[in-house]
Amino acid sequence: MTATIDPVQTLANPARGLVCRACGAAYPLAAQHACYACFGPVEVGYDADALRRVTREQIAAGPDNLWRYAGLLPAGHDPAARVTLNPGMTPLVRADQLAAAVGLRAPLWVKDDSANPTHSFKDRVVSVALTAARALGFTRYACASTGNLANSVAAHAARAGVPSVVFIPADLEAGKVVTTAVYGGDVVAVDGSYDDVNRLCGELVETDDFADTAFVNVNVRPYYAEGSRTLGYEVAEQLGWRLPSQVLLPMASGELLTKVDKAFSELVEIGLVEPPAGGWRVFGAQSAGCDPIATALHTGAGTITPVRPTGIAKSLNIGDPAAGPFALDAVRRTGGWMDSAHDEEIREGIRLLARTTGIFAETAGGVTVAVLRKLVAAGRLDRDAETVVFNTGEGLKTLDAVAETVGPTHRVRPSLRAARDAGLR
Amino acid sequence: MTATIDPVQTLANPARGLVCRACGAAYPLAAQHACYACFGPVEVGYDADALRRVTREQIAAGPDNLWRYAGLLPAGHDPAARVTLNPGMTPLVRADQLAAAVGLRAPLWVKDDSANPTHSFKDRVVSVALTAARALGFTRYACASTGNLANSVAAHAARAGVPSVVFIPADLEAGKVVTTAVYGGDVVAVDGSYDDVNRLCGELVETDDFADTAFVNVNVRPYYAEGSRTLGYEVAEQLGWRLPSQVLLPMASGELLTKVDKAFSELVEIGLVEPPAGGWRVFGAQSAGCDPIATALHTGAGTITPVRPTGIAKSLNIGDPAAGPFALDAVRRTGGWMDSAHDEEIREGIRLLARTTGIFAETAGGVTVAVLRKLVAAGRLDRDAETVVFNTGEGLKTLDAVAETVGPTHRVRPSLRAARDAGLR
Repeated sequence: MTATIDPVQTLANPARGLVCRACGAAYPLAAQHACYACFGPVEVGYDADALRRVTREQIAAGPDNLWRYAGLLPAGHDPAARVTLNPGMTPLVRADQLAAAVGLRAPLWVKDDSANPTHSFKDRVVSVALTAARALGFTRYACASTGNLANSVAAHAARAGVPSVVFIPADLEAGKVVTTAVYGGDVVAVDGSYDDVNRLCGELVETDDFADTAFVNVNVRPYYAEGSRTLGYEVAEQLGWRLPSQVLLPMASGELLTKVDKAFSELVEIGLVEPPAGGWRVFGAQSAGCDPIATALHTGAGTITPVRPTGIAKSLNIGDPAAGPFALDAVRRTGGWMDSAHDEEIREGIRLLARTTGIFAETAGGVTVAVLRKLVAAGRLDRDAETVVFNTGEGLKTLDAVAETVGPTHRVRPSLRAARDAGLR
Repeated sequence: MTATIDPVQTLANPARGLVCRACGAAYPLAAQHACYACFGPVEVGYDADALRRVTREQIAAGPDNLWRYAGLLPAGHDPAARVTLNPGMTPLVRADQLAAAVGLRAPLWVKDDSANPTHSFKDRVVSVALTAARALGFTRYACASTGNLANSVAAHAARAGVPSVVFIPADLEAGKVVTTAVYGGDVVAVDGSYDDVNRLCGELVETDDFADTAFVNVNVRPYYAEGSRTLGYEVAEQLGWRLPSQVLLPMASGELLTKVDKAFSELVEIGLVEPPAGGWRVFGAQSAGCDPIATALHTGAGTITPVRPTGIAKSLNIGDPAAGPFALDAVRRTGGWMDSAHDEEIREGIRLLARTTGIFAETAGGVTVAVLRKLVAAGRLDRDAETVVFNTGEGLKTLDAVAETVGPTHRVRPSLRAARDAGLR
């Protein structure tokens, strides 16, 4: 529950059912993540007329969080029935110093999703997924996670007073484990990669013991994925209902990039924005230790070959990315590109973003800034086109990534003479 | 610079000068923190008529951050001249589960200032202080800090493209050092307590080498202190322009408590709120390792005896609290009380807040929740009076405080059988 300042809007649900992204088969709105006909992934389908009834004025009259877009979402239309920490409406920060550092001449913006309640963009997808899960009758909340998702699910469950059980790779950053376990739910460390964790959750969700349990990124995944669209809506609204010419997003499963592109398309279709001259182009960033989507683009492959992830960007370490083909399609269709960054480049990306914008990003943000620099240098990103890059998480969660490379610049005894002797002036 | 969605309001400055809090001597608005007549602390004095011209409607039409209250502040009236990460308008979270756990029957709210850009309430005071500092001509930003303040000053300076030098005790939590140093300014680790650091800064600020430097909590302290008032304004506005009957705040220098009480008084004086029936009562929380203000209250002392701080709540470890006498006065005048919490109680306070609200606080928040429990149990806080407690910082910055007491609840191999053998169901 939030304070009474938030305007209360009860809106109609524009979602009409689930639709297979591969074969187009249609299903009712339920807890289903694969097509019964072809086993392809399903997503939420909307009533186009219902979406078109949403206006800029209605959105502006909503609360200052992602629920202002409830008229475009498949859950959360009744404010009293939400399971949420009220994420969203994170800052869109003009980054002139960063633009100068990487050689962009047009305006550059950082959409800083580390400002969400548990300090990653995952609060968006979790709020939508768990609100849908409550409506579907689930009484326990769960996920397979590389860290940020576990943190968000555990925090949402704590606020809602609902039990939770989250599954993480056992080698996760200590910060992300503590920040999840402190909320008091079950935290299961799995000896294996994220892909192993995900597979285990896919098996557990089919058992009777977990029939009461919503795994946000398994059995209620279609709702979960829709939450990412709000990042696209916010960028457009914060730019004064305009779309940027170029966007650059980090990729793990590839879902975030896919959904931001989809959000832009929807806004144009329902008449809330005009497309920029020449359309928009979508760019993707991966860690060199886990870059199966970028590799498929670079080699011109039609399918994505899974990899075993390595490297410090653990939140992006999904070796078998579920939405990879859709991300690949969005980038190819819009004329964008992808690249990847090595660990040392990632660390430098974190420091560059911090020094030029005052935003301290986790390793995923370092990946994005490092790839920004590469794509500008290579001429893939147009130096003269307005660009938005996305920071999806908080540097405090991956302190170890930079802890060895930054620290006090001086150490002194508490006296004026000691300060002068140390060269302080 | 923020995105164009923020309404632009250019307002008049209601500040008329600096006034000595001890003898009442008046001075112009400059970089001055002590009275030239009696050496007492000075604060900003306002034109009462200018304050009274501020309306609820004007505030509501402002941006969704602390600058909506610019008409009540001594700096930041021209949006283009602000040095800011745009903090404020942090969530006021209804905490029914926490109320039940501590035995409160009336509504309980947590004002969660960990949601600020660098995840502590210090972003408020730094934004106001550095905006004033720029107007006063300073070209370098500095502070004496227990951690959060250094973090905020370094981040603000990075975004503004201005050099910074921050002074911290050498034994600070590693998280707070990395989170400050990553912004690229100078970070000076001082072998001593915060009080030693503060004394050193008080000497440096008088030297020619630092004539260009604004120490936010030394030479521009009067402006800095005013930023805390916005916490009080926000609570009132978020409650629908009402004041709560009881507020509980952590105390380091004592300034935050003093200024929230002052903000409430001002809102009543200028007609923006009605006082609650019976007025409001102000309560303070300290760590048992550093409780000079609470001790003075408990012993009935007229002055505060400095202590050498110990314990895990390092952000509150100010042994010689500058605003302690004013905090003591506010608590005595309103009929409130103070208490303190030991390290183990602080850790339990952090866990209790997390489990019941989904908010992960740093040690200062643990202090506040632990003292909340004590004051209710002792009958000092009225169980039937609406209460607001303040969380001033983020748990990710003080992970070590709870890292040993929380962690994975299960560890398994990635197989269904292993999960069942571990008792997962």
